[in-house]
Amino acid sequence: MIYFDNAATTLRKPPEVADAVVRALGAFGGVGRGVHGASLDAGMAVFEARETAARLLGAPCAARVSFAHNATAALNIAIASTIPCGGRAVTTAASHNSVLRPLFKARDERGCKVDVAPVRPDASLDFGAYERLLEGGADLVVATHASNLTGDVYDIARMTASAHAAGAVFVLDAAQTAGTVPIDMGALGADIVCFTGHKSLFGPQGTGGLAVAEGIEVAPLFVGGSGTASFDEQHPRFMPEALEAGTLNAHGLAGLAAGMAFVEREGVAASAARLGLLTERFECGAREVSGVRVLGGRGGIDRCPIVALDVCGIDSAMVADELYREHSICVRAGAHCAPLMHRALATEQNGAVRFSFSHFTTAEEIDEGISALEAVVRAVR
Amino acid sequence: MIYFDNAATTLRKPPEVADAVVRALGAFGGVGRGVHGASLDAGMAVFEARETAARLLGAPCAARVSFAHNATAALNIAIASTIPCGGRAVTTAASHNSVLRPLFKARDERGCKVDVAPVRPDASLDFGAYERLLEGGADLVVATHASNLTGDVYDIARMTASAHAAGAVFVLDAAQTAGTVPIDMGALGADIVCFTGHKSLFGPQGTGGLAVAEGIEVAPLFVGGSGTASFDEQHPRFMPEALEAGTLNAHGLAGLAAGMAFVEREGVAASAARLGLLTERFECGAREVSGVRVLGGRGGIDRCPIVALDVCGIDSAMVADELYREHSICVRAGAHCAPLMHRALATEQNGAVRFSFSHFTTAEEIDEGISALEAVVRAVR
Repeated sequence: MIYFDNAATTLRKPPEVADAVVRALGAFGGVGRGVHGASLDAGMAVFEARETAARLLGAPCAARVSFAHNATAALNIAIASTIPCGGRAVTTAASHNSVLRPLFKARDERGCKVDVAPVRPDASLDFGAYERLLEGGADLVVATHASNLTGDVYDIARMTASAHAAGAVFVLDAAQTAGTVPIDMGALGADIVCFTGHKSLFGPQGTGGLAVAEGIEVAPLFVGGSGTASFDEQHPRFMPEALEAGTLNAHGLAGLAAGMAFVEREGVAASAARLGLLTERFECGAREVSGVRVLGGRGGIDRCPIVALDVCGIDSAMVADELYREHSICVRAGAHCAPLMHRALATEQNGAVRFSFSHFTTAEEIDEGISALEAVVRAVR
Repeated sequence: MIYFDNAATTLRKPPEVADAVVRALGAFGGVGRGVHGASLDAGMAVFEARETAARLLGAPCAARVSFAHNATAALNIAIASTIPCGGRAVTTAASHNSVLRPLFKARDERGCKVDVAPVRPDASLDFGAYERLLEGGADLVVATHASNLTGDVYDIARMTASAHAAGAVFVLDAAQTAGTVPIDMGALGADIVCFTGHKSLFGPQGTGGLAVAEGIEVAPLFVGGSGTASFDEQHPRFMPEALEAGTLNAHGLAGLAAGMAFVEREGVAASAARLGLLTERFECGAREVSGVRVLGGRGGIDRCPIVALDVCGIDSAMVADELYREHSICVRAGAHCAPLMHRALATEQNGAVRFSFSHFTTAEEIDEGISALEAVVRAVR
């Protein structure tokens, strides 16, 4: 089996991830829920995960990293935390439903105004339109660092400059880029970075979080036991507890810490360079297959290891089925939770066949993928 | 080391739990995020977890069980889902902050009215007061199945009858009882049961969820990628997807499924009977230690394996430290996120020393615990 669905979740993890989870499962109490060794061990592991995440994202310090169930939870928290009732938010058509739906929920339930900057048919952002939307001022900009559909990385530093000039807080969806593209939230100017643990940081599912710049006020979306200030009717407002409630997933976070340590050791930039070459190799091969159209994907190293295809204008699900059944290749078909991107690319009808790679992908797998694609095209045409 | 902090999280799990997580970590894609084998394997594991949870809780079917990060997330979702703006909620003083704080948040942000039925100094609920609070009608009652502080189980069937007569939806916090007390949500009359995976269901941390009775309408608190209906601006409203967004923790849920299968095999009633005897053994021993007062704890089998103590009127943290340092016994001290219960028991000042047991606790450990308690009392007096 060749697994090319790493943008959904990485299947192959460094072996130390499972080792860390197993050790944690045999040793951990609840974080912040006791002063005995089992609880302190869990607390240390989570602190280590915060420290590593802070380094990988360029966050000010470990205490500015809160953990959440996944990037979706982190984005819901970040959005609820930063847009007031009746406030104004701007996003882009490259956004995933984990950005769009929380914004539309704020619009429908809290009277917020939501504008969406368009993306061109080549997946590039229409910066002029984005900047015009910000002219009237905004409370919040939420944007994806890279399209989960095409892998295109956006110019975040330029986007944050315009957002800040408009008075907006900038929330970055780094679900696809944490671990595949170097991130320095200070240099990018992102106020909050939402990430997931189970993709290119190689953690288990059930992990993710958000890094919050100094000076950005946060308010919890969900509240409950905090292990501190128990007699207070309100959940604590200080980071990182403000955005965490109930028992943390210390078992998963121990695995995430191991995954992030691996990413740090390998080096994100080095990994990205190598993955960029593999992605380009696949993309070039795919472009030569008759009837195959690459969606977006302007090439270069600073992009995510994702290549999305329209295959002969037929239903992407059929192509994915054929790739799996005949060639044991796992890809993802369909809409990829990116509805506005499909509208921009005119692929609403058939969706896209998405190939996504990881640190563990080999050149041989890439070449097998291209051969399989050729065979599928021969079969379906 | 003797671990008596199982009400926070169970440390010792059946070995098949770690085995299942390790297998999942080596094999799973994202649930509902592809049609290839890795994704389908993850989907099957999660479906199995839903089925087992439904059986253990007496839920109508697997599709009425949604998974969440922990019981706190489940309670936030259940509460946000069932109380309208300006609505009226009733809870009890036995509630954990994972119930109280979401209700106070609804009061402060959405104009809801929240009333709290009092608990007597023996930890019993004042039913008359509870019923009087419901006389004017209510939208929502949220109550804990058992106090996380004293282990006392409340008469939920009686509470749901009054709640339904008042027109309220009844949400049950089963964080302490799922796995330690037989639960049949139909027989109890609970409309939503919120549970955690990492306590007496022996799952990893990062697991929990809510079971929702047929006919109860739910609305999501978190929204985002659902893997279905991607072109819809709103998150799906059908169970179980309505209350889940983003990638599920399939790695953790595979472990939870193994933990729940263990619980089912052992039998909750049989386990509860055995644990009830151990709990009574500890309680009787503790009562004989001079200066020790058992908080609540009216005995009998239908209770949680928790015994909370006031030790000589001194700070509970000092006692817990001494138990850990001198006797390697892990207990929890402090407020236990149950502020109103401490007010009822007049233990706000010193908190309580909580001993909590699990399926794996032995009679020898119980006796060592009593001896250690005696030694600590001699040392601190």
